[in-house]
Amino acid sequence: MAVRRVKNKMIKIGIIGVGTVGTSVANILKENADVISARAGVDIVVKSGVVRNLSKERGLDIILTDNVDDILNDDEIDVVVELMGGVEEPYEVVKRALKSGKAVVTANKALLAYHRYELQEIAQDIAFEFEASVAGGIPIITALRDGLSANHIESIMGIMNGTCNYMMTEMTNNGVSYDAILQEAQDLGYAEADPTFDVGGYDAAHKLLILASIAYGIDAKPEDILIEGIDNVNSEDIAFAKEFGYAIKLLAIAKKDKNEVELRVHAALIKKDEMIAKIDGVMNGVSVVGDKVGETLYYGPGAGGDATASAVVANIIDIARSGKSTPMLGFNRPMEGDTLTLKSSDAIESKYYLRINVSDKAGVLAQLSKIFEEYNISIETMLQRSSENESANLLISTHLAVEKNVKNLINDIEELTFVNGRPAMIRII
Amino acid sequence: MAVRRVKNKMIKIGIIGVGTVGTSVANILKENADVISARAGVDIVVKSGVVRNLSKERGLDIILTDNVDDILNDDEIDVVVELMGGVEEPYEVVKRALKSGKAVVTANKALLAYHRYELQEIAQDIAFEFEASVAGGIPIITALRDGLSANHIESIMGIMNGTCNYMMTEMTNNGVSYDAILQEAQDLGYAEADPTFDVGGYDAAHKLLILASIAYGIDAKPEDILIEGIDNVNSEDIAFAKEFGYAIKLLAIAKKDKNEVELRVHAALIKKDEMIAKIDGVMNGVSVVGDKVGETLYYGPGAGGDATASAVVANIIDIARSGKSTPMLGFNRPMEGDTLTLKSSDAIESKYYLRINVSDKAGVLAQLSKIFEEYNISIETMLQRSSENESANLLISTHLAVEKNVKNLINDIEELTFVNGRPAMIRII
Repeated sequence: MAVRRVKNKMIKIGIIGVGTVGTSVANILKENADVISARAGVDIVVKSGVVRNLSKERGLDIILTDNVDDILNDDEIDVVVELMGGVEEPYEVVKRALKSGKAVVTANKALLAYHRYELQEIAQDIAFEFEASVAGGIPIITALRDGLSANHIESIMGIMNGTCNYMMTEMTNNGVSYDAILQEAQDLGYAEADPTFDVGGYDAAHKLLILASIAYGIDAKPEDILIEGIDNVNSEDIAFAKEFGYAIKLLAIAKKDKNEVELRVHAALIKKDEMIAKIDGVMNGVSVVGDKVGETLYYGPGAGGDATASAVVANIIDIARSGKSTPMLGFNRPMEGDTLTLKSSDAIESKYYLRINVSDKAGVLAQLSKIFEEYNISIETMLQRSSENESANLLISTHLAVEKNVKNLINDIEELTFVNGRPAMIRII
Repeated sequence: MAVRRVKNKMIKIGIIGVGTVGTSVANILKENADVISARAGVDIVVKSGVVRNLSKERGLDIILTDNVDDILNDDEIDVVVELMGGVEEPYEVVKRALKSGKAVVTANKALLAYHRYELQEIAQDIAFEFEASVAGGIPIITALRDGLSANHIESIMGIMNGTCNYMMTEMTNNGVSYDAILQEAQDLGYAEADPTFDVGGYDAAHKLLILASIAYGIDAKPEDILIEGIDNVNSEDIAFAKEFGYAIKLLAIAKKDKNEVELRVHAALIKKDEMIAKIDGVMNGVSVVGDKVGETLYYGPGAGGDATASAVVANIIDIARSGKSTPMLGFNRPMEGDTLTLKSSDAIESKYYLRINVSDKAGVLAQLSKIFEEYNISIETMLQRSSENESANLLISTHLAVEKNVKNLINDIEELTFVNGRPAMIRII
């Protein structure tokens, strides 16, 4: 693959979308200019930025405009930093930038979740970098694409949504209820007014798809994979987890099994002594298992203006150093994606934890056991906890079972007259 | 800086020193050839290897020789992998390779601890890579040099010697004595017959010097910095640590304080909830604090043939992709090293833990307190534990104090008639 070298003595940047992260990018390039120019070998300056509202004071000494053409048509600009948000609008902007020979750096995970392969095709030998799109300030793209490139990747397990991890940690450590901690996360600015994108697992899924492309060359879109959130985890589940030595986390998982790759996002019970279970609060962490290196894990802040901008600026420095060396998604020739296919969600195998609310009647356990047997699901532990209104909660963990069977089991159990509501389920890692 | 591109359709490797790691390098390049050639864009094959003993069967289909000239003078070889061990002999070999235009990959931390700046000077635009030299399979060089390049590095704290971490973990979790666990580590092959290089802190110090060059551009040799080991940690210290919520680890620390950089290796008491304190067993971990990104941490196997070879092969893939993009030590122009100086060990400030064995006589505490006061060292906690022969152990933790004062304090206390032996000291992080 050819290399586009930026030959100028000074690299000029245009930022499209000067919000929190864009402002941090401009500030870092200025405040840390000493080390940045030493490492890059050239000076890097922000020339201009695109904003929606020109009248807002931002305290930046760069040209501000509300017209993207002012950056896209500016021949002096070497690198476009895309921080607009959204999918289709930035896609058009980034395509135009690449076609005019400008390198692009983006933090936009949604754009990549949908258009990473088209963008790789368009970029060809123009640098297109996106370190900040996954796990904020943690250089996980660099680690996976460059540092672990000698390995077949066996699995990736990521805590890549700080909001969910904060909520799960607080529920576990301080016994706070789901609703109370969601409210607190919103008050602290960790969660949006509509938190669905975070707590529903979609944000983590976007990031997972990006990592899966680098690890496996596999093409999938959010609607192709299993995505669940943390919204069905309650205090009883937390208590069970603590009693049996688990933490509960929202995990994004990519896992290779022969010629198939599983991609899934859901709440998971993880044994407390696993390194990934030790990542608490708003922090992110990604565990990667390679066939040769074994497990490595990467930990740090997954969000925040400066942390995210740290990754954006690192990409700019890479581009200034060399133009481009690593191919965008990490492979120069067709990779395993050619032989690997996405595993059907129904075929996933896991251990499961189930919470079933039953009216406290004789014969309940016998009837339930029969259904478990029918679906070939073997029970590992069972706890009975009395609940309100003479009902009881059965907390059950299973041995390895097939997802489709467990779903059918839950459907059948929900229909039983002595079962109240739909049983809750959390997968065990 | 110019870029040397490897233009061949196939990259040929010569391995100098085909031991455990060298054999793993050859095996990985063969077994993982599918993903490696996809990622590199070219095929990579090992052509030949240098061994001391030609009659030993190694099960490799490469040319074996006992003469380094067969590789250094072979025009077909693009990349020399140096895995000889030692310092001066590999230095001569690597110099010759670079001068003949061959890229070099090494895992040799001792070579770099002494000669990294000369090698950078000689390498210029020839690729010289060394990911495996620090923390084995963890891509910490890549993370620090590329992923965190936007930051002033405030501190690096590394658990970079698996032998010491294994010993400390076992002493803490299973109450094993230092001597028993050292014996066990030797039996398991984690520790050499002469364990000084590991338990004395020298191995970790070599790695620290490499990271400090990338972070700060600072030049120092092992003999310039504070290096202590874990050999003075005993069960009583472990008990104190557990009681007060600390773990004890051998830490390698680089820390910037205004225009000075501290570089030091020693056992340390670390609060248990710190992420670095959670790294147990033979695993390695490096925490890096950047002024913009905050703390990120990298965890994984620090030793072992395949894990180390994973890093060596990643470097080879990088070279195949681009020839060279990142400068060897991460900077293209003089960096902070020009303005930063090495802080004198005596000037280090830390909290301290002291263990003082005293004959159980009246007035002991009053006399000790007076000496602490003289050196302006303020005591945070004190515990008294009865010991053998009517003596007692005083376990003392201090507030922040200056290293020189603490050393003088220890010298003075050792001279007191009611004090038995030299007081032991562990720094608190």
